[in-house]
Amino acid sequence: MVSLTLGQIAEIANARIPDPPPVPDLCIDHAASLSAAGPGSISFYSHARHRAELQRTRASAVLLRESDRDHCPVPSLSCEDPYLGMARVLQALYPPPEVTHAIHPGAVVDDSAQLEAPVRVDFGCVVGANVRIGAGSVLGPHCVIGEGVTLGEGCVLHARVALHEGVRVGDRVEFWPGVVVGSDGFGYAQEDRRWVKLTHRGGVRIGDDCEIGANSTIDRGMLDDTVIGCGVKIDNQVQIAHNVQIGDHSAIAGNAGIAGSARIGRYCQIGGAAGVQGHVELADGVIITGMSKANQTLIRAGAYSSGTSIQENADWLRNVARFKQLDRIIRALKEGDKS
Amino acid sequence: MVSLTLGQIAEIANARIPDPPPVPDLCIDHAASLSAAGPGSISFYSHARHRAELQRTRASAVLLRESDRDHCPVPSLSCEDPYLGMARVLQALYPPPEVTHAIHPGAVVDDSAQLEAPVRVDFGCVVGANVRIGAGSVLGPHCVIGEGVTLGEGCVLHARVALHEGVRVGDRVEFWPGVVVGSDGFGYAQEDRRWVKLTHRGGVRIGDDCEIGANSTIDRGMLDDTVIGCGVKIDNQVQIAHNVQIGDHSAIAGNAGIAGSARIGRYCQIGGAAGVQGHVELADGVIITGMSKANQTLIRAGAYSSGTSIQENADWLRNVARFKQLDRIIRALKEGDKS
Amino acid sequence: MVSLTLGQIAEIANARIPDPPPVPDLCIDHAASLSAAGPGSISFYSHARHRAELQRTRASAVLLRESDRDHCPVPSLSCEDPYLGMARVLQALYPPPEVTHAIHPGAVVDDSAQLEAPVRVDFGCVVGANVRIGAGSVLGPHCVIGEGVTLGEGCVLHARVALHEGVRVGDRVEFWPGVVVGSDGFGYAQEDRRWVKLTHRGGVRIGDDCEIGANSTIDRGMLDDTVIGCGVKIDNQVQIAHNVQIGDHSAIAGNAGIAGSARIGRYCQIGGAAGVQGHVELADGVIITGMSKANQTLIRAGAYSSGTSIQENADWLRNVARFKQLDRIIRALKEGDKS
Repeated sequence: MVSLTLGQIAEIANARIPDPPPVPDLCIDHAASLSAAGPGSISFYSHARHRAELQRTRASAVLLRESDRDHCPVPSLSCEDPYLGMARVLQALYPPPEVTHAIHPGAVVDDSAQLEAPVRVDFGCVVGANVRIGAGSVLGPHCVIGEGVTLGEGCVLHARVALHEGVRVGDRVEFWPGVVVGSDGFGYAQEDRRWVKLTHRGGVRIGDDCEIGANSTIDRGMLDDTVIGCGVKIDNQVQIAHNVQIGDHSAIAGNAGIAGSARIGRYCQIGGAAGVQGHVELADGVIITGMSKANQTLIRAGAYSSGTSIQENADWLRNVARFKQLDRIIRALKEGDKS
Repeated sequence: MVSLTLGQIAEIANARIPDPPPVPDLCIDHAASLSAAGPGSISFYSHARHRAELQRTRASAVLLRESDRDHCPVPSLSCEDPYLGMARVLQALYPPPEVTHAIHPGAVVDDSAQLEAPVRVDFGCVVGANVRIGAGSVLGPHCVIGEGVTLGEGCVLHARVALHEGVRVGDRVEFWPGVVVGSDGFGYAQEDRRWVKLTHRGGVRIGDDCEIGANSTIDRGMLDDTVIGCGVKIDNQVQIAHNVQIGDHSAIAGNAGIAGSARIGRYCQIGGAAGVQGHVELADGVIITGMSKANQTLIRAGAYSSGTSIQENADWLRNVARFKQLDRIIRALKEGDKS
Repeated sequence: MVSLTLGQIAEIANARIPDPPPVPDLCIDHAASLSAAGPGSISFYSHARHRAELQRTRASAVLLRESDRDHCPVPSLSCEDPYLGMARVLQALYPPPEVTHAIHPGAVVDDSAQLEAPVRVDFGCVVGANVRIGAGSVLGPHCVIGEGVTLGEGCVLHARVALHEGVRVGDRVEFWPGVVVGSDGFGYAQEDRRWVKLTHRGGVRIGDDCEIGANSTIDRGMLDDTVIGCGVKIDNQVQIAHNVQIGDHSAIAGNAGIAGSARIGRYCQIGGAAGVQGHVELADGVIITGMSKANQTLIRAGAYSSGTSIQENADWLRNVARFKQLDRIIRALKEGDKS
């Protein structure tokens, strides 16, 4: 267990020294929410919706903005972005376990696989021919790594991740259970109204410092690769189709889907259950709000939406009925105007 | 195989004795739909769309409402809610197999795990340190149970369910294959336009009598727990984000997504592919219809919708073009009115 | 590695002999995109968006339409549908590996299972009692095949596919990792505002020549079967609920959801993240565009949509506010007209 002084925490969080000055030997050994916090804990306050909880907190110290200090009944450390500060403190309090080299006897690792020690391969894993895995990487139970796949250093595959042949992964990429990378894209020609499969031969490249959420899927490209940039964060149950390109430091929230050959720029944010249509391009810095459908190329940064807002069903039914005839109604009203 | 008399079925279904009175020793040993039913089967009728099938059924008996008796050519058992009656009869005809204590030699169970006999642990399971599993629970093949997880009595994990450290599950909870519980929430701070991960330390608590569908995912909370109440039913491919709270006896249909820190009341129904935005609160008894987006807090029970209705693409394109300018058009029309 | 002459490729692709006539012994041994292609490669051109790449390509030959020949700097093979031609060529260049009979010692196969040699069963598979698997089928690692399941000839289960009891699969069906077939449908009766589970006893039937994408789920029927026709292509993360029927040669793109008892005709196309409501019927040849909600029965072939189009968030907010009162506004405007 890690234990830190408030001075150390201030340094990690890039925060001002506590006010009031801390008990000299006060140590922080865990983090907690404002309401659950007790002795020995650090908490944070970054949104007014938690004001009441701040005022009643029993944390040993709270990270917050300078302007919120007066509301805090316990020692506070002020910084510009308490959420960021907390992220740094959490990383310091809960470092990942050290990796020791261990290949579980219940794993099946091909002799030609190159594992740069230390690497941990857990029970039930299948590691194919000519796989290369960098130092410090961990394969949790039941991962299946196809022939020739490369994984960089410090990757974590929590459990049952499937990486098919043709997948190349950078350093420090984290995969949650159920992720599938390198499945065939959904591409078919038609002949006599039947589907003729396009054999997919492209791969998938994933940059450094990405995270891929549980049960997300990333298809291989048809001839060229599907490409995920560096620092890209992908939530649970996201679907990335063949030949998609995602720029560095973009984030895609849960249930979103990116259709074939779409290109997403850098620093983009795709909201939960949003969709990006095939071949559409999004400029750097585009934000698609939750459940919106990006059905055209967007060449300027900014937030975009589609859909309508929630309302009582009875009202909605009336409005939807009007929407179905909106063009006709407006034409008629305009005609009426003129007459 | 279970075999029941019509009298027993009437009792189980809380239905009136058959009319006409049954052959004394007629036995029911299976259930079938109205159209597929033959001798020895029980069926049910609860919706007028199946009227023709009722009239031609060859079931040995049919559960239906009193008012529908005249349309039934075979012995009928009348009750208020034939669908509910059928649910009870099905449970009686097809009881779950008894659990006998068996740890498959091809499972990896930590010595410190406490399994209250009888518990079945199938091939390929990984059960971590200090796990506690209650009597009558079944772990199908390839389940991965993280350190310290607790499972109550009579739980069923059909296959490859992943429960991460920090997950606590009540009694009689059923998990379908591919479920992941306790993965990290999708929470990042930003620094220089890069994402800084928030280490998630909260857990997931799941109440009694829940069901979690195939490939659904439930993230752990950041500091506090994600909480699923008792009797909550979750369909396939549902995503529940960090720190969500779902009240007792709510149901969430397939492909739905509940974003971070949303609070769903008791007795709510979230339709298929519907979304609940982060931090939104839904009162008890709120119904969100399929594919709707609950983008604001709803404080009264009732049904709510968003989106539009399906129509021919050519018409839709015209209406959507109007929608994109709806505010401007309406302003112009109002101006026209005044002039 | 397969190597083909241009004459052979022309025949496979049903294309006209190359123009200019090829070097007699030129051999094609791989496929590549126009921009990545080099010596020995075949590429294709089927959309004007790739014109510049065509003009600079270094492929040994390109499949294209007769009318595009002039833009191609290298030998071209013209055909009516270059995409279809490429599909055939890819299948010829990259045939699936031959299946040799092999049951991995780390698989658990019930003695009563009937495997028609050659069948490959990989590490970690669990094959239940009375399962029948046809010749040429492959079970990748960690597949779980329930009691009595039947699989036809030439099926491929890439990894960790779960087929529950009651599933019957035709010939040449491909399953990607994480697929779950035969989980219980999401059906509950209510009693005292609590959910009472409907035990599901129907099965799932899947026809010949289907493909099911990664992490897709198909529930068993309640009493009758869920039925997927022949030649049906299902992308990743698609959810098919209980008692759905899907006609031959239909295709369903990623993240789509088909609710309970919906009936989809033949030759239908369901776009990405689209939804089909429960009990809705779609005629043969219906196309539902991406993210649209088919909330009513559609009796004529054609394309259908719902929802709105993407626009800047500020504009969208104004339009959505109008939509919420659309019926009232239009009533008022019409009243204004009359006055």
